[in-house]
Amino acid sequence: MRVAGLMSGTSVDGVDVAVVDITKQKINLLAFDVFPYPNTLRREILRLCRPESARLDNICHYNFVLGEVFADAIIKLCSKSGIPLNSIDLVGSHGQTIYHNPRGKCYSKTKIRSTLQIGEPSVIAHRTGITTVADFRPRDMAAGGEGAPLVPYADYILFGRNRSSRAVQNIGGIANVTFLPRFCKQDDIVAFDTGPGNMVIDGIIRLISGNRQRVDSGGKIAAQGTANKRLLNEMLRHPFLKRRPPKSTGREEFGHSFSSRLYKQAAEKGIANADIVATVTAFTAKSIAWAYHEFLPAIPDEVILCGGGSRNNTLVEMLRSELPNAKMLSTDDFSISVDAKEAASFAILAWATIKGLNNNVPGVTGADRPVIMGKIIPA
Amino acid sequence: MRVAGLMSGTSVDGVDVAVVDITKQKINLLAFDVFPYPNTLRREILRLCRPESARLDNICHYNFVLGEVFADAIIKLCSKSGIPLNSIDLVGSHGQTIYHNPRGKCYSKTKIRSTLQIGEPSVIAHRTGITTVADFRPRDMAAGGEGAPLVPYADYILFGRNRSSRAVQNIGGIANVTFLPRFCKQDDIVAFDTGPGNMVIDGIIRLISGNRQRVDSGGKIAAQGTANKRLLNEMLRHPFLKRRPPKSTGREEFGHSFSSRLYKQAAEKGIANADIVATVTAFTAKSIAWAYHEFLPAIPDEVILCGGGSRNNTLVEMLRSELPNAKMLSTDDFSISVDAKEAASFAILAWATIKGLNNNVPGVTGADRPVIMGKIIPA
Repeated sequence: MRVAGLMSGTSVDGVDVAVVDITKQKINLLAFDVFPYPNTLRREILRLCRPESARLDNICHYNFVLGEVFADAIIKLCSKSGIPLNSIDLVGSHGQTIYHNPRGKCYSKTKIRSTLQIGEPSVIAHRTGITTVADFRPRDMAAGGEGAPLVPYADYILFGRNRSSRAVQNIGGIANVTFLPRFCKQDDIVAFDTGPGNMVIDGIIRLISGNRQRVDSGGKIAAQGTANKRLLNEMLRHPFLKRRPPKSTGREEFGHSFSSRLYKQAAEKGIANADIVATVTAFTAKSIAWAYHEFLPAIPDEVILCGGGSRNNTLVEMLRSELPNAKMLSTDDFSISVDAKEAASFAILAWATIKGLNNNVPGVTGADRPVIMGKIIPA
Repeated sequence: MRVAGLMSGTSVDGVDVAVVDITKQKINLLAFDVFPYPNTLRREILRLCRPESARLDNICHYNFVLGEVFADAIIKLCSKSGIPLNSIDLVGSHGQTIYHNPRGKCYSKTKIRSTLQIGEPSVIAHRTGITTVADFRPRDMAAGGEGAPLVPYADYILFGRNRSSRAVQNIGGIANVTFLPRFCKQDDIVAFDTGPGNMVIDGIIRLISGNRQRVDSGGKIAAQGTANKRLLNEMLRHPFLKRRPPKSTGREEFGHSFSSRLYKQAAEKGIANADIVATVTAFTAKSIAWAYHEFLPAIPDEVILCGGGSRNNTLVEMLRSELPNAKMLSTDDFSISVDAKEAASFAILAWATIKGLNNNVPGVTGADRPVIMGKIIPA
């Protein structure tokens, strides 16, 4: 089965599209690209994400607009990569989250969890002529789950059922792990956020470059510095690291205000810029390793990296020395590029929906039971 | 196939639930009831229908709340009517429209039509354990249609393919007709709003009773009066009646301000209250008959009435004398009560979705082509 996966994240930068072939033996990535949103569209969507600025008429309108944008992205990717559109059997679309309330709000004494993704899948199905599965989160929440994370199921399909134990370590803004014990069953999956991914590193890079630079490309700046032991040890006392899973974090804990405070503190101590970058890079590596030692059932035989952070060589080297007994791999080694993995995950989730397979992981989301997530829109 | 249909209309009074058995030969209504919304819920939903008062967090929350309310309604109807919940194969839910923009709004030079219904179907599917089809309108709009009306397809399934030509005449607040020529094919369906249904009659009843009475029950008041010819002729010059189909109308044209103006005018002329009611009842009957004469391909052999207005005997008698060659029936004669017909229609639409049948009527909605409307949520 040939499936296209679509993902648009909370940063609202653009839509990721991956096309994969799914067979019993293997999942093959055929094509991948990111289609950035025009600036005006990005601003409009960001306005839809805040109750203070989101208007009903705009929610309704941009739901259909994003449907068109998502469909266009699939059509463009097919055209530039030479994949015939009509060779695709299925589309899986995460949509764009504009509101998510996993804790819930009471209605007549019952706690009601809710979530809202836009990017009308009826438009995707109509424009592409391909059956589309979308809106995965609501069903897990109806079953009492938090509707997140969803990717561990795809990690399990991609990398589970193996004679080695594996950790799929995504290093995006936030870092999260999916642990798959050897010969893993769906019930055995453990997944949670380990702490910051690139978020603190990127934050510091922006501060020291006066916003001229956004990332420490390849970890080159960190490689020139040395981690400051005292600052590092202070950072490692962050309460999030000690919290037991299931746990998740975000910009509230490791965003701009965290980086600013840290930068100020380091500058006061007279720590050189490259050393600050080396320190936060070490902090990121150590927070991941700490999570493995504290909260995983075992140190995995293999760590499979994905997300932009897996291209930060200094970070990867530090992680390697923190976890000397784990073989350090990336999704590239399984012919799924580290950037394409998330979009590919929604292709896999949609494939499961169509096959009638339960595609949530109750042990991870907190749902009462396994359910089939997703709404099917016939072509 | 046993299917439950759910409908919640623009008046936001409550949710209608119908359970029907669909066989090749016949569609049988097994149970029907209306579950009124608590006042506080009704007020909250009405706030969600206006861009000025709708908040993102509330849209997200009440989408899931209404899903729970809809699921409860099905479970209660089954329980009180002795239908085992697990004997129902499918649910079809229209949802609650909170925004509908059939004319569309431009995005990057393309006109984008959009619509938004709430009442999360993932919650319905989860609570009832029944596969649910919902969100019919978006697909027709993706195909360039207005996403309305949807009921003509159900009228066609229920009453088409007959050796007589038929008009299914719904008399709700607004009156609308579905014309089905003899041996009707889906392309032959003609449907549009004929003008006011009960809206003007109810408006006048409220005004003359000082809001103590809401309807002319059975048409008793109208029966005591005589239509005022001059006033009636003036009313029949209303521009909506002359407009060519496809056309639709609503409160903007025949709501409170229309009734108030009319009542004032009639009172100034010294027309007695019962005569005013008789006049607006005659106006309603004549506007329906006018539409048949002007805009239907032929006067139908049979008129099948449904909606609350079909219980207004005076109105029905007037319609009978306006259309002397048409046999006057109601959906009751086909064992589907006049109140249950709309909810039953969404059971039929869902049945078509699951069977892979195109269930829009392009000639009526303006869509480019026939499509399968509805999103399928596996049980």
